[in-house]
Amino acid sequence: MILRIDRWQTELPPPSSPDPDGASVVQELLGGKFGEMSTLMNYTFQSFNFRNRQGARPFYDLIANIAAEEYGHIELVSAAINTMLTGAPLEGARPRNSQQFVAGGKSALPQDSMGKPWSGDYVNATGDLVEDMTHNFFLETGARNNKLKVYEMVDHPAARALTGYLLVRGGVHQVAYARAVEKLTGADLMKMVPSPRIPTDKIPECQPHIQRGDHLRLYRFSPEDYKEIVAVFNGPHPETGEDLTVVDHAPEGAPPVDLPPEHDVFAPDYAPEEISAIAEKLRQAAGLPKEPTGVVANNGGGLVGKVKDAVT
Amino acid sequence: MILRIDRWQTELPPPSSPDPDGASVVQELLGGKFGEMSTLMNYTFQSFNFRNRQGARPFYDLIANIAAEEYGHIELVSAAINTMLTGAPLEGARPRNSQQFVAGGKSALPQDSMGKPWSGDYVNATGDLVEDMTHNFFLETGARNNKLKVYEMVDHPAARALTGYLLVRGGVHQVAYARAVEKLTGADLMKMVPSPRIPTDKIPECQPHIQRGDHLRLYRFSPEDYKEIVAVFNGPHPETGEDLTVVDHAPEGAPPVDLPPEHDVFAPDYAPEEISAIAEKLRQAAGLPKEPTGVVANNGGGLVGKVKDAVT
Amino acid sequence: MILRIDRWQTELPPPSSPDPDGASVVQELLGGKFGEMSTLMNYTFQSFNFRNRQGARPFYDLIANIAAEEYGHIELVSAAINTMLTGAPLEGARPRNSQQFVAGGKSALPQDSMGKPWSGDYVNATGDLVEDMTHNFFLETGARNNKLKVYEMVDHPAARALTGYLLVRGGVHQVAYARAVEKLTGADLMKMVPSPRIPTDKIPECQPHIQRGDHLRLYRFSPEDYKEIVAVFNGPHPETGEDLTVVDHAPEGAPPVDLPPEHDVFAPDYAPEEISAIAEKLRQAAGLPKEPTGVVANNGGGLVGKVKDAVT
Amino acid sequence: MILRIDRWQTELPPPSSPDPDGASVVQELLGGKFGEMSTLMNYTFQSFNFRNRQGARPFYDLIANIAAEEYGHIELVSAAINTMLTGAPLEGARPRNSQQFVAGGKSALPQDSMGKPWSGDYVNATGDLVEDMTHNFFLETGARNNKLKVYEMVDHPAARALTGYLLVRGGVHQVAYARAVEKLTGADLMKMVPSPRIPTDKIPECQPHIQRGDHLRLYRFSPEDYKEIVAVFNGPHPETGEDLTVVDHAPEGAPPVDLPPEHDVFAPDYAPEEISAIAEKLRQAAGLPKEPTGVVANNGGGLVGKVKDAVT
Amino acid sequence: MILRIDRWQTELPPPSSPDPDGASVVQELLGGKFGEMSTLMNYTFQSFNFRNRQGARPFYDLIANIAAEEYGHIELVSAAINTMLTGAPLEGARPRNSQQFVAGGKSALPQDSMGKPWSGDYVNATGDLVEDMTHNFFLETGARNNKLKVYEMVDHPAARALTGYLLVRGGVHQVAYARAVEKLTGADLMKMVPSPRIPTDKIPECQPHIQRGDHLRLYRFSPEDYKEIVAVFNGPHPETGEDLTVVDHAPEGAPPVDLPPEHDVFAPDYAPEEISAIAEKLRQAAGLPKEPTGVVANNGGGLVGKVKDAVT
Amino acid sequence: MILRIDRWQTELPPPSSPDPDGASVVQELLGGKFGEMSTLMNYTFQSFNFRNRQGARPFYDLIANIAAEEYGHIELVSAAINTMLTGAPLEGARPRNSQQFVAGGKSALPQDSMGKPWSGDYVNATGDLVEDMTHNFFLETGARNNKLKVYEMVDHPAARALTGYLLVRGGVHQVAYARAVEKLTGADLMKMVPSPRIPTDKIPECQPHIQRGDHLRLYRFSPEDYKEIVAVFNGPHPETGEDLTVVDHAPEGAPPVDLPPEHDVFAPDYAPEEISAIAEKLRQAAGLPKEPTGVVANNGGGLVGKVKDAVT
Repeated sequence: MILRIDRWQTELPPPSSPDPDGASVVQELLGGKFGEMSTLMNYTFQSFNFRNRQGARPFYDLIANIAAEEYGHIELVSAAINTMLTGAPLEGARPRNSQQFVAGGKSALPQDSMGKPWSGDYVNATGDLVEDMTHNFFLETGARNNKLKVYEMVDHPAARALTGYLLVRGGVHQVAYARAVEKLTGADLMKMVPSPRIPTDKIPECQPHIQRGDHLRLYRFSPEDYKEIVAVFNGPHPETGEDLTVVDHAPEGAPPVDLPPEHDVFAPDYAPEEISAIAEKLRQAAGLPKEPTGVVANNGGGLVGKVKDAVT
Repeated sequence: MILRIDRWQTELPPPSSPDPDGASVVQELLGGKFGEMSTLMNYTFQSFNFRNRQGARPFYDLIANIAAEEYGHIELVSAAINTMLTGAPLEGARPRNSQQFVAGGKSALPQDSMGKPWSGDYVNATGDLVEDMTHNFFLETGARNNKLKVYEMVDHPAARALTGYLLVRGGVHQVAYARAVEKLTGADLMKMVPSPRIPTDKIPECQPHIQRGDHLRLYRFSPEDYKEIVAVFNGPHPETGEDLTVVDHAPEGAPPVDLPPEHDVFAPDYAPEEISAIAEKLRQAAGLPKEPTGVVANNGGGLVGKVKDAVT
Repeated sequence: MILRIDRWQTELPPPSSPDPDGASVVQELLGGKFGEMSTLMNYTFQSFNFRNRQGARPFYDLIANIAAEEYGHIELVSAAINTMLTGAPLEGARPRNSQQFVAGGKSALPQDSMGKPWSGDYVNATGDLVEDMTHNFFLETGARNNKLKVYEMVDHPAARALTGYLLVRGGVHQVAYARAVEKLTGADLMKMVPSPRIPTDKIPECQPHIQRGDHLRLYRFSPEDYKEIVAVFNGPHPETGEDLTVVDHAPEGAPPVDLPPEHDVFAPDYAPEEISAIAEKLRQAAGLPKEPTGVVANNGGGLVGKVKDAVT
Repeated sequence: MILRIDRWQTELPPPSSPDPDGASVVQELLGGKFGEMSTLMNYTFQSFNFRNRQGARPFYDLIANIAAEEYGHIELVSAAINTMLTGAPLEGARPRNSQQFVAGGKSALPQDSMGKPWSGDYVNATGDLVEDMTHNFFLETGARNNKLKVYEMVDHPAARALTGYLLVRGGVHQVAYARAVEKLTGADLMKMVPSPRIPTDKIPECQPHIQRGDHLRLYRFSPEDYKEIVAVFNGPHPETGEDLTVVDHAPEGAPPVDLPPEHDVFAPDYAPEEISAIAEKLRQAAGLPKEPTGVVANNGGGLVGKVKDAVT
Repeated sequence: MILRIDRWQTELPPPSSPDPDGASVVQELLGGKFGEMSTLMNYTFQSFNFRNRQGARPFYDLIANIAAEEYGHIELVSAAINTMLTGAPLEGARPRNSQQFVAGGKSALPQDSMGKPWSGDYVNATGDLVEDMTHNFFLETGARNNKLKVYEMVDHPAARALTGYLLVRGGVHQVAYARAVEKLTGADLMKMVPSPRIPTDKIPECQPHIQRGDHLRLYRFSPEDYKEIVAVFNGPHPETGEDLTVVDHAPEGAPPVDLPPEHDVFAPDYAPEEISAIAEKLRQAAGLPKEPTGVVANNGGGLVGKVKDAVT
Repeated sequence: MILRIDRWQTELPPPSSPDPDGASVVQELLGGKFGEMSTLMNYTFQSFNFRNRQGARPFYDLIANIAAEEYGHIELVSAAINTMLTGAPLEGARPRNSQQFVAGGKSALPQDSMGKPWSGDYVNATGDLVEDMTHNFFLETGARNNKLKVYEMVDHPAARALTGYLLVRGGVHQVAYARAVEKLTGADLMKMVPSPRIPTDKIPECQPHIQRGDHLRLYRFSPEDYKEIVAVFNGPHPETGEDLTVVDHAPEGAPPVDLPPEHDVFAPDYAPEEISAIAEKLRQAAGLPKEPTGVVANNGGGLVGKVKDAVT
């Protein structure tokens, strides 16, 4: 089971110019075959289905723990898409992805960049450990390829912040699975990294994360469990030679940006201030503080209390 | 983001007689339109896409928090399916779901009971709060319908323990969303509960959970966040009249059963003891304890150290 | 079984400026999850599968009768799309929906606005009456949401006439199903109407239909059957307080516009006048009148007899 | 638009021994690529999208009118499936199509015999008249092939009555479209009939319909329209040499069998008698007769008033 | 089994101005329901599944041999798409088909023009010879329709060269299957050709192929087999009256254009010259000639030896 | 383009006891994600889309040539399925895959073992050479896994002969792609072979092929091209240490078994002898020999001339 923390794994910029067509391309990183839904669900099902966990504990822990990190990635891609859609005009719109407007409230969908829904068919969880690790290494390679291309295609600040972060973290996972194969078979997959063969540090938006050392760290996303990841994730980084490290907790992350209502798509309502008024009363009746207890990056960014005028 | 805990939300029995065709039917509760992948992903995307969170905090917290619980549900359904497949003969098998063997290692797949992959198309996240709550109430109704039928169709102990638990927890979510609609619109959806109109307490396997009071409790699956769920989840239970309660932490749960290897499907390997030997060495090299650090229900159930003989 | 009437349920304007990208967005109302194919097929299958019809006759009659009306809606959405595509240039076209040209003859397809085919998976017909009515209420809510957004996105006269009409009629169905739930459970779903929470009478194109009283009327689409709809569809309208009424026949409707041939897509032929000549001879041989017996809004709009020059 | 008549186009036998696996095979005739959903929707969309209707009226009338008949066919296939599922035990069931139980209430689904949902992709409506007629001739050929095989595979009385009827009516449509091609191009497609090359009158269950002359008749399913079908549907039948005839109204058909409730799948409810009681009150309040106004084949077959004991 | 020849069936022009949106439309001819993947796979499976080959040899040979030609067609459509994508800027791109960039390296995908993957569902291989021939005749008709429309929509030289060639060859297949039906049933399908009813020789890009006589020829794509195609493919061409002929070998074709690397999409690498250097060494070690042994239309068009400067 | 040879790459046994449910499982090897349609189409599209062929010729040749071999594999899997279905009773059948009967004439379909159609989505052709080779190595690993399981599940002689052969040939491809990665990156993927970790020579049905040396040979499937495969496919076999060899032509193979007609599914006709009679006349008219020119394993196995009695 999981505990959820209402923070993002990294900061994303607040809404600026809307870019709906860019947002439709970023969908590939969410619901595409090589998107974050796929990395999340591949590793999640592999961990659920893992037989003989005690006997193969370091590998089980590795998969289960990376799965946990991926949940934060689908959150981040969704956030970037929602950011890019904020303020996009509905009237007269003919966007690449019309369903971001019509099905969602200017929001992210579990679809790829062509509007094809994510499919359970994208999950490979054979139970054969060598095969699954080989697959995961390949999956991270494909994911890296897609992120690099989306990086080039979409220069919206939210997309760039997103891809910069994901490239660094995906790079860590690629190394982790390569390491797992190495430990299991002796094959030196480190020589295959980076793949595609463009060094990660050439991407400006990766730099802050590299400088912080995030390209070397595997975080442990659990209060007590998955401690044996250290048995696999160790040794030198294939590109820099620095030591790979396990960090014994989740990253600190950042409070989410509270995106403003979009009343033309009824998100969260045609008259969002009415919802706010109801919420205020409910909070009061429940003995909660007058101000919302949630922590967000932009106090007042959303529609709290009487700030309704700002958005309508 | 999330933290992951290596425990199940409830106990499931260890493997007994395999029941692959039963396991293929239980898939409906995992990857079906009304299965747990759908509840998980609907609420997850609704929470990711929620605009004006501060203004509508109690509702955001409700959705985000129930989403967190659902992650534990896909884990449980997968575990039940894997349990039912344990020991199923591969030779000469003509199972309803051949891919549980051929694609997985006698394991759960993100598919429904007809082998159709779960689809992102099953997600409805419109951003319109009243609509999304209406949807979620309906989704829980459909889910309850499916669980009741699978309960009747499959009497394997793992399936019964699973459906007994899920019916109680799904019932709580149905009530929670009904409550949300009520708070937002004044419509008394409590009169629509239970739907289907069979009282939950008629199901024997629901009894232990009801007696523990789990039909009244919404657990808060977060160290610090989602505190405003109390503002929505309160008042009397529609069937029993007892008070609905928020529990300020996750349930204690139970350690997972470590399912034995199935070497005929190479899970985790054709010769699982080799993986165990590698794991042992890696653990040693990393300075970890000699015994695996993971906690499972059945020490020795899996293939640790020299106990290989027990399973082959 | 059905009888078919060669008229539209409401008037639509004749072709004006083509708007293929607009037409591609309107597809969501035809083949989308919440489009008219879905309302038609959900209610149709629910009526086919209805058990104990005599015992629950008023509800059976309600579903079966609304299903009949929905057939007319897929006809109208198709007509609007075809109208918007009339005269669209093929040469050099790079439309959002290329298949409206390549697969169809500038025509409507059973697809959504992203080109995804309508799927039988969109049908929910559980047989559980309370659940199906809950579903239908939700489905009409989702459909209303989609219509409102498409209304904003596409201002072509045919799209606006279409959405204006469908919003009023969908509103009636939303009320009808809410009423059914109310009769079955006592829950006052009327408080959830309208959903999304924008009053229908704010839409100018809804006005003529509201003024005619069409927001209050359920038509009976049958010569002799489905008479018990009056037992469910009654009481005050939730928005206006006026009485809901059953009209004991189908609406009068309007003759369809006969759209001109599009010879560059071979509809109905590369040389449509040859088809007309053949038709003329066949009619004569069969002893039919010299002029076509069909009634259309625009005599001569199509390519009859020698009027070919007008279109080429 | 349509008017709906609450009768079946032909009689089907009442429930006898349940045959769920047979019912799962019959699904191919409903939701398969060559099933009745396909014939219905192909002809329906072809008629909606028909350009230059006046100029090509006899052909438009033919397609539109056959589309109307097909609606009655999806009704009949559904009815046969529902009949075969009536009384099928839920407990312990491992049926070929689990969703007939889990998603439906022992009922028909818009799926094929492998559980794959019907898809809008099965519709071909190019607008090119010769091409569409060629397609329809081929579609009826494929449909005939499928019906002949399902006839052999499933000997349940409902399936046999169904296929016997559909083979005769499908044969008429095959001839009608062959005739249309012939009128348009001069090619004598009559030589291709029957296809597959087994004479229809070899099937015992076709005999009553052939003896009634139904293999020669095209019914006009409209109060006033589609009168020009006579201009295409004429001449000798390719197998028997008898004259093809147009009947100027719909067939008389038969009242539907009111299938009994299945309370284990909650159809229409876990306690169907409660629904009946509600219905009775509603009828009374609306000033309707005490007895249901609907006409069914089996008075009392369903659960009316106090006859509940008969079914439980 | 097959032997592969590294030549194209016809010449295509080298890259000129990129036209990604045009390329996305051409996809319909590759992965659409009526695209070349469909013709290839329909005939291939019909030949694999053919029962009683000796007894029906001329028909088996016809299908098997045309299947072989179709392989060359998917090659050509792919080549045209790749040509149109060559040099297309990645930065800032918002193309109709984003996956041509993100999933492929500016390359062709087994998808249609809306990005929907080609599906095995498009294959009809019933084994009934008359039915399959009827189907194939219809399939070629639909394919011709699509090619004619894509011809109009996309005027890129590669697309025009492609459609000009395919229209002529598809026309031959249409005639071949019509002939097969005629031989089997006596029906004179020649009267249905051409369909759509626009004469092929009106298309300028068809002229060179017609003048060469390719509209009359069926090539035999086999060293030794499929000799009985002459028994079906004979008689006069339905449009010109000239004699149909069998050519006893494959067409000569043309060497493929070696498309240049696209390093921004890593095709074949971020630094393609490194691959070339590796290749050079491998060739040397294997005792192969210094220059690549492959024959291409544009020596030096790709990145050989030191010519890297030309492309970066 | 290709030339087709009417022989199988290996012998398969003639029909014996039918095993339709076994045949439905074997479908996974044809139309599953890791089936032969996938290997064929992945390598085919990778070769079509290959940029800078001259510069990377040895790798291009490798992919293009293996693609050619895979065509023979879809032929063999289809043949095995058709063999297993021969003689299967249609009457009363309730097979796992009903469409093998209803859609096909007891024949193979481009579907997986659950009846899901093969999808173009299974193709990965990124153009990045290292990534594509990594993918192909993984794909062959998954394919080997599936073959090993199907081997265990289905013991029909045709299935065993098939899987025995495919395991050996797939093993060669796995080695070839591992070698390609090694040549490109230096990573020693040979250590990952075999994967799954069961030695191929433990499978009795692999023995004849291993003894013939087929586990070491890459055949060149082209009259003149793809000569540079020797530059990649060389060195010692990872399991046996023997030298890998390139054979400069296609394998000799074996004549296909001519499967008998199945008249209850109209393959090739309800009255197959009529087709034979037509064929005989056509052959004569074309000046062909009296006996069919095709070479099959079982003269008279099919229905030639007057031998019809043998099969009915």
